Amino acid sequence: MVERLALQNDNKILLVVLDGLGGLPVNGRTELETASKPNLDRLAAKSGLGMHTPVDIGVTPGSGPAHLGLFGYDPVLYEVGRGVVEALGVGLHPAPTDLCARANFATIGPDGRLSDRRAGRIPTEKCAELCSSIQQAIPSVEDVAVVVKPGREHRFVVVLRGAGLESGLTDSDPQHEGLAPSPVKPLRAEAAKSARIANSFVSLCQKLLASEPAANYVLLRGLDRPPHIPSMQERFKLRPACVAVYPMYKGLARFVGMDVIEAGETWESEVAALRENMPKYDFLFVHFKDTDKAGEDGDFDRKVELIERFDEEVVPQLLRLKPDVFCLTGDHSTPATLKGHSWHSVPFLLNSPYVRRHAALEEFGERACSRGTFGCRLPARQLMNLLLAHSLKLQKFGA
Amino acid sequence: MVERLALQNDNKILLVVLDGLGGLPVNGRTELETASKPNLDRLAAKSGLGMHTPVDIGVTPGSGPAHLGLFGYDPVLYEVGRGVVEALGVGLHPAPTDLCARANFATIGPDGRLSDRRAGRIPTEKCAELCSSIQQAIPSVEDVAVVVKPGREHRFVVVLRGAGLESGLTDSDPQHEGLAPSPVKPLRAEAAKSARIANSFVSLCQKLLASEPAANYVLLRGLDRPPHIPSMQERFKLRPACVAVYPMYKGLARFVGMDVIEAGETWESEVAALRENMPKYDFLFVHFKDTDKAGEDGDFDRKVELIERFDEEVVPQLLRLKPDVFCLTGDHSTPATLKGHSWHSVPFLLNSPYVRRHAALEEFGERACSRGTFGCRLPARQLMNLLLAHSLKLQKFGA
Repeated sequence: MVERLALQNDNKILLVVLDGLGGLPVNGRTELETASKPNLDRLAAKSGLGMHTPVDIGVTPGSGPAHLGLFGYDPVLYEVGRGVVEALGVGLHPAPTDLCARANFATIGPDGRLSDRRAGRIPTEKCAELCSSIQQAIPSVEDVAVVVKPGREHRFVVVLRGAGLESGLTDSDPQHEGLAPSPVKPLRAEAAKSARIANSFVSLCQKLLASEPAANYVLLRGLDRPPHIPSMQERFKLRPACVAVYPMYKGLARFVGMDVIEAGETWESEVAALRENMPKYDFLFVHFKDTDKAGEDGDFDRKVELIERFDEEVVPQLLRLKPDVFCLTGDHSTPATLKGHSWHSVPFLLNSPYVRRHAALEEFGERACSRGTFGCRLPARQLMNLLLAHSLKLQKFGA
Repeated sequence: MVERLALQNDNKILLVVLDGLGGLPVNGRTELETASKPNLDRLAAKSGLGMHTPVDIGVTPGSGPAHLGLFGYDPVLYEVGRGVVEALGVGLHPAPTDLCARANFATIGPDGRLSDRRAGRIPTEKCAELCSSIQQAIPSVEDVAVVVKPGREHRFVVVLRGAGLESGLTDSDPQHEGLAPSPVKPLRAEAAKSARIANSFVSLCQKLLASEPAANYVLLRGLDRPPHIPSMQERFKLRPACVAVYPMYKGLARFVGMDVIEAGETWESEVAALRENMPKYDFLFVHFKDTDKAGEDGDFDRKVELIERFDEEVVPQLLRLKPDVFCLTGDHSTPATLKGHSWHSVPFLLNSPYVRRHAALEEFGERACSRGTFGCRLPARQLMNLLLAHSLKLQKFGA
C-alpha cells in the first residue's frame, strides 16, 4: 500500500537500532527500565511511544527476519535462509543465483559415523588455515565456482556460484553424534544439480582432509539462495544508507538496497560515519550490536550498563544531527534471563513534530511504551509506514 | 507460521476456560470486577494480562468458533456448523463426509402449522424413547445410513452417513410458531441429494410419530459436514487433553485431536481428573460451564457468586498442579445484562516466568486486562502462540 503513496522529499529519517533491546524484568524492572538514561527519558517525554512485534505473536525472530521487518519488509514473505545469513555474516555478497551454506568442520570415524559434529571446536586460526586449503584445492566443482570463507572455531561458509543452482535441499548434518552424515538431498527436481554439486564438494573435502586428526569431514546446513527483494529505493523512493559494524547487518542492509558506509569498529566511529554521511541520504539506519551480546551472555547488569553508556555518550550526538524523524528501537528482545532472542514485543520511540505525545509517559521502557500512542503490538514492518508518514513522504490515499 | 516452529518439550500448559467469563458493568463494575476473588487478583499481579477477540471485532461467537479460536484455529477458516457441534455434543464422532443436523421434536397441527417448535419441551427420557423408535424404524434413507441420538428435552441429533452428501442446505425450522415448516432446500446443485434425503427423513418421521400427542414432527437445523481440521498434535506437536463436563466441549476438543478425559459432573471431579492426568499430557484444557449459564439467565449476582466460589475452591487447587504456563480466560463474553453471548473482548491472564508484568495492575478484570502487557485486542487464535512461546515450545524463526 505505502509503495503507491511514497514520494521523495528532503526530510531525513534516522532509524537507530540497539540490537536485542527488549528485555524481561529482574526485581520488577527490565534492563531498559533499570538503566539510568536521562537523555532517552527526556526524549521519550516529547516523542510517541509504542511496542512492535518483530514477526508474529509468540514468534522469536532471528536477526535476518527481525531486520527485514524494521526495513519495512514482511519477513515471512522474504525469507532469508540460514546459509545466506551466515554468508552475509562473513562479509560475502551472495547474488540471488548463489547457493549459500553454513558449514561445520566435523570428525568422522572409520565406521563412517560422526564422532564430533564440531571437530572438537578447533581454534579459529586452524579453521582459517583449513578453509584456505579447501579454497585452493577445490576452486570449483563441475562448472560451479566455490567460495569458502572461515567463521569462528569450527564454522565456515560455502558459496556455490554457477548456473542452475536451485534451492530446496536437505542438510547433511544429522544433528546427532554417532550417526552417519546424510547426503544433501533435493526436495524438488530442479534442485538435483545443487545436491550433486554439494555432495561432490563434501567428498572432495573428505579426501583433502583425510589426514586431519579432528577436522576430517564437512557438514552442510541451511543451503539456500538469497531471496529477490525489491529495494527500498524502488518501494519507498528513499535514498537509504547503513552504518553498522557487523558484516551480517551490513549484508542485510545491502540486500534491500542500502549503501553500506564504512563505519569502523566502535560506537564513536559509527557516529562519525553517520555525521559525515547525513547530507547524502534521507534514510539512515545505524546499528549497535553490544546490547544483544550482553543479553545472549545472560549479563543483565552489562546490558543495563551499555544502555546507560549509550544514553550518555551516543544519544546527545545523534540528536545533534537533527533528523526530521528520529526513531530508536531494537530488532527483537534478548532478555538476559533467557540468554537469547525472544518473542517479546520491542519498545520504540519516534520523535517528530507530528506525533501525539502522551504527557504522562516520561520514560523510555517496555511498560511506558506498551501504553504509548502507537499501541503495544505494531507489526514491525509497519514501523516503516510511521517513519515515512512522519517525514511527510507519503501522499494522501484517494481524494 | 507457528506450525513450522513447534517443538516438543516437557513443559505443561494449563488452559482454564470459564465459559462466558467476560461481562458488562452493573453499577460500574462487570461480574468479574464485582466478584471478590483474592486468589485470582494475587495471581494477576504476577501474570501478564490482556484481552482477546474471539472471532472478529464486533462479532458474537457461538461456542464452536469461540473454542476453536482458543485452541489456535481460525474459526472462520474452520467453520463448524451447528449440526456438527450438536453431534459432537451428544458424543457422536462425525466423519468429514457425514451430514449432521440439529433436530427438535416439535408439534404440528392438522393445518400443517407448527404450534410448538419444542414439543412442549418433552422430558429427556421421552426424547430418548422416541429417538430409539426412529433409529429402529428408519435405519437408512435410500443408500444413506441414519444415526439418531437424543439430547436434552426436545433436542436430538441426526447424522446422515453415505456417499455424495454435500453441505449447503437451508433449515426446515421456520423459527416462529404458527408457520409451516419449510422443506430443506439445497443452496447449491451439489447438495440436491442431501436435501432429498433430509426431507425424506422428515416425512418418514412424521408418519412414525403421527400418534404422538406433542412430539409429532421433526425440525432440522444447521445441516453441515465437519470441516477437515488438522490436529493439535500435527500442528503444534502437543499431547493435548480435555477435561470438561458437557459433551459439546468434549466433542470440539476431540475434533482438534485432544484426548477426552472422563471428568464426572462437578468442579471437584473435573479438578480430580485433571490432577490425575497431568503427567500424561503437555496441554490440558479444562472447561467450566456454569458462568455462562448464569450470564444466559441474566443473573448477574449468580455469575459473581460462581466466580467467587471458583476463586476460593478451584483456583488454589489448579495452582497446586504447578503447570509451566497457566492461562485463565473465557471463550467469549456472556454479560448478564445481555442474557446471551456477546461480541465483547474477553479478559485473560497468563502466568509464566517469562511474562512482562505490569506492576500497577493488581486485579483480574476487564479494565485491568485491557491495559495489560498483551494488549486489548489479541485475536483469540493467537493466544495459542503465546501459550506455546511461554512454554518454550517454539523454535526461532530464521537466523
